Amino acid sequence: MALWHGYRPELLTDFYQFTMAASYWKEGMRGRAAFSLFIRDLPPHRAYFVSAGLQSLLAFLDDFHFDASSIQYLRSLGRFPEGFLKYLESVRFTGTVRAIPEGRIFFPNEPILEVTAPIVEGQLLETLIINTLHLEILVATKASRCVHAARGRPLIDFSPRRTHGVDAALKTARSSFLTGFIGTSNVLAGQMYGIPVFGTMAHSYITSFLREMDAFRAYAAAFPDNTVLLLDTYDTLSAAEKAVVIARELQAQGKKLRGVRLDSGDLTRLSSQVRELFCRHGFSDLAIMASGNLDEYRVEELLQSGAHIDLFGIGTRLGVSADAPYLDMAYKLVEYDGRPVLKLSPGKKTWVGEKQVFRSYDPSGLMEYDILGLKQEKHPGAEPLLEPVVVQGRRTAAEESLAEIRARFRADWERLPEEYKKLRPEKIYPVRPSDPLLALQDRVRHSRVAEEIGS
Amino acid sequence: MALWHGYRPELLTDFYQFTMAASYWKEGMRGRAAFSLFIRDLPPHRAYFVSAGLQSLLAFLDDFHFDASSIQYLRSLGRFPEGFLKYLESVRFTGTVRAIPEGRIFFPNEPILEVTAPIVEGQLLETLIINTLHLEILVATKASRCVHAARGRPLIDFSPRRTHGVDAALKTARSSFLTGFIGTSNVLAGQMYGIPVFGTMAHSYITSFLREMDAFRAYAAAFPDNTVLLLDTYDTLSAAEKAVVIARELQAQGKKLRGVRLDSGDLTRLSSQVRELFCRHGFSDLAIMASGNLDEYRVEELLQSGAHIDLFGIGTRLGVSADAPYLDMAYKLVEYDGRPVLKLSPGKKTWVGEKQVFRSYDPSGLMEYDILGLKQEKHPGAEPLLEPVVVQGRRTAAEESLAEIRARFRADWERLPEEYKKLRPEKIYPVRPSDPLLALQDRVRHSRVAEEIGS
Repeated sequence: MALWHGYRPELLTDFYQFTMAASYWKEGMRGRAAFSLFIRDLPPHRAYFVSAGLQSLLAFLDDFHFDASSIQYLRSLGRFPEGFLKYLESVRFTGTVRAIPEGRIFFPNEPILEVTAPIVEGQLLETLIINTLHLEILVATKASRCVHAARGRPLIDFSPRRTHGVDAALKTARSSFLTGFIGTSNVLAGQMYGIPVFGTMAHSYITSFLREMDAFRAYAAAFPDNTVLLLDTYDTLSAAEKAVVIARELQAQGKKLRGVRLDSGDLTRLSSQVRELFCRHGFSDLAIMASGNLDEYRVEELLQSGAHIDLFGIGTRLGVSADAPYLDMAYKLVEYDGRPVLKLSPGKKTWVGEKQVFRSYDPSGLMEYDILGLKQEKHPGAEPLLEPVVVQGRRTAAEESLAEIRARFRADWERLPEEYKKLRPEKIYPVRPSDPLLALQDRVRHSRVAEEIGS
Repeated sequence: MALWHGYRPELLTDFYQFTMAASYWKEGMRGRAAFSLFIRDLPPHRAYFVSAGLQSLLAFLDDFHFDASSIQYLRSLGRFPEGFLKYLESVRFTGTVRAIPEGRIFFPNEPILEVTAPIVEGQLLETLIINTLHLEILVATKASRCVHAARGRPLIDFSPRRTHGVDAALKTARSSFLTGFIGTSNVLAGQMYGIPVFGTMAHSYITSFLREMDAFRAYAAAFPDNTVLLLDTYDTLSAAEKAVVIARELQAQGKKLRGVRLDSGDLTRLSSQVRELFCRHGFSDLAIMASGNLDEYRVEELLQSGAHIDLFGIGTRLGVSADAPYLDMAYKLVEYDGRPVLKLSPGKKTWVGEKQVFRSYDPSGLMEYDILGLKQEKHPGAEPLLEPVVVQGRRTAAEESLAEIRARFRADWERLPEEYKKLRPEKIYPVRPSDPLLALQDRVRHSRVAEEIGS
C-alpha cells in the first residue's frame, strides 16, 4: 500500500540493533549466536498460548536484505563507518530457525522460536521477530478463548475498524481463523489469505432510506440468498416484525431470509423475544446473530443467561486483545560462540542455552506436563515441540495452508485438559526445567556472579 | 514491504460496505451523504483526546481507487452483479472532508472529521477512516499523558517490538513525537517521518562479551561520542562502578560518556545510588535514563518518590495504550440527500446533521467550554475547530510538517486547564449541544419514533 511504497521492513527495528551490529563488526565478532524467543508470564486469566505468526516471519526472512535506500538513510545519520555500511549491503539471513509450529499450544518460558546465526543477523532481526509473533500469538490466544466460550456456535471476526492499524487487522483475521472462527468481515484478509468473508448491512444503510422497511426490501432484492437484517437501528422488536414480513416475501419467491443481527440493548431478553416472534410466525430456523462489544466473557454470560443466539460477531475486544493487550515476550541471547550466556536482571529470568520443549501426555492422551530441556537432551516417550523451519538460510518445510494449521490447533485443543481452557483458570500447567538445564543455569549464574558482581 | 506486494488498501474494509454499496448502486441512490466521525465516551482516566492521523488518511484518499486485482477478487466471491463491479472501477473520492487539524485537543461526541460525498464513496471509506484515525488518536492521547507526567524530562518511544504490527509501530513513533517525545528507537519511522532515532545497547550485547567491562569498552571505542551504558545485565551498582571507569577513559581521550540506562529493579533506589556514585567521582552530569514497563503512572510515581532520572524510554504500554487499548469511535451517517438522519439504538447516541465545534476561551486564554452546533451556525467570539481539508476530491491544504503539528499541540496544551491534564482527572470538560442542534435532534427523533416504532 501507499504507506509502504519504497520502504523496506528491515528498518522496522530498534536503532540499537544497528549500533550493536556496528560494534560486533568492528570487533570482528563473527561467532554463531543463539537467541531464544519466549513469553515470561501469563497475562491475567490465561493458562496457555497459541502459536501463530510463523508464516509472516518466514516470508520476511526469505527476502531479508538492506536495499540502497535503507543504507542511504543509515549513512545520513552520520553515526556509522562506511565499512560497516558496505558490510550491511551483503547481509542476508544465513542462520537456522527452530520453532513451535503454528496452531500448537504452549506455555510461559518455553521457547517459541530459536535462531542460531552469526550474531549480527540474529541481533538485527530481534525487533521484527517479536513484533510479528507477539501480535499473532496474542490474538490467536484471545480468539481461542472466544471459540471455547461460544460452545460450538460460529464466530466471525468483526475487528478491522478498531485494530491498531492495517497490519493488525489482517493478522487478527488470520489468527482468529486459525483457532476456529469461520471467517472475517475484512475483505483484504479474504483476498490475501483466502479466508471466507461475511457481512450484510450497517445502521447507515438503514438510515439512508426513508423507512426501515424500504431498506430491508431493497437489501433483500439485491441479495435474496444472503440477507441478514440489522434490527436495532430504531427499535429491535419493531424491526423483528418487519423481518417477518421480509421472510414471508422471500418465501413467496422461493427464497429464504438468512437471519437477523442484534447489535445493542439487552441481548438476552431481545434474542428470546425475537426467537419467540419468529417461531410464532413459522420461521423457527431464522438465525439470530449478535454483535457489539462482545468478547469471551460476554459470550459466556449471554449463553449462561439463556440468550437465543446462533452466531456471534466479535470485534474490537478481540482485535486489540482488550483484557490483555500485550505479552511479556522477550528474545534473548542464550549462547555465543559456544558459550552459554545469561543475564541476571531482577524479575527477568532467562533460561540459558539452546533448548527444546518435551511434552508428555497421560494415558488418555491429554497433556500432562512439559519438560524444558537443553536441545540435545533425550526424553523417550515425550514429544519435542520445536522443529527446524529454516536451515542455513533456506526454508526446510513447505508453506502450510491455513486449513492444516486449523487442524493442528483443533488436535492440540482436544489434548488440553479442561481446567486450562476455563476463562478464569485456577491451575498453572506444569513446565519443569530438566536437570541438565538446571545444572547449566546454575553453573553459568555462579560464574557470572563471581565474575561481574564485585566489591 | 513484502506483505503488501500487489495488494491495495481499499479492500481493508468490512465486507458489508460492498454489499451496501451494491444495493445503493442498484437502487440508483447517488445522493450526497454526510458522515460524522466521533468518539462516544472517555476511556478510564482520560479527560481529552489529541487529534492525529489525518495525514495518513489524506494520502490514502488522494489515491483511492479499486485496481483490477481488487475487482477480480470481489468478482470471485460470486455475490456482485457485473454492472456494479464495472461501476467500482470508476469510483474515486470526489467528496469533501472537514476535520480538526492534527495536534489539537478535543472531547467526546465532537466530530473529528466529517465526510460529505456520494453515499457509496462515504460508505466504502468507513473502515479505513476509523482504523487510521483511531490508532493515532489513541496513542497521541496516551503519549501526551506521559509527556505531562515527565515534567519536562525528555521521552523516547521504545515500543516497536510489542506494538500490534508494523503499522502500529510507525504510527506510535509519529503520534508520540507529535505530543512532545524527542524521538524513537524505530529506525523505519526515522526514515519515513524524519523523526530523530535513539538507542545504544541491549543485554544481548553485554552477554555476548566475556566480561561486561569488555562490552562497555568495545562500545565506547565504536561510539565515543554517543555511549549510554546499560547497567542491569548482572548487577546495576557493580556496572555503575565500571561506568565510572569508562567515563574516566573517555575523559582521557577528550570525550565524554553520555549516560547510563537502568532497565529493571527498584529504579528510585538504584537511580539515587548511581547518581550519588557518579557525583562522588566527579561525573555529576552523567544522564541517567530509565526504561522497562514504564508508562505515565510509573513515571509520575518515580518522580514523586524522588528518583534521579533524567530521561525515560517508554515502550509497550505506550504502543498498545495498555490501560485503554481502544476508543469507542464511530462513523455515522448524519444526513442523506438533504435529510438529517439518526439511529436510536440504546446506549449509542449519535448527533444528527453536519456539525461544527465552537470553542470558547476564558479571559486568561484557557479553554472554557465547547459548543457542539450545526455546521452553519455562528457563534461570534468562539473558534470553529473543523476546517476543510479536501474539497470535491482535492486537497485544499498543503501537507503539514511534524514540526508544525508539534507546535500546534504545544499551543493547545497550554490552553488546556490543569484539572483536565491530571492522570486521574475528576472533572469533565463542558461540551454543550447548541439550541438549533437540540431542536433538530428532537424533531428527527420524534419523527423516527412515530414512523418506525409501531404496534
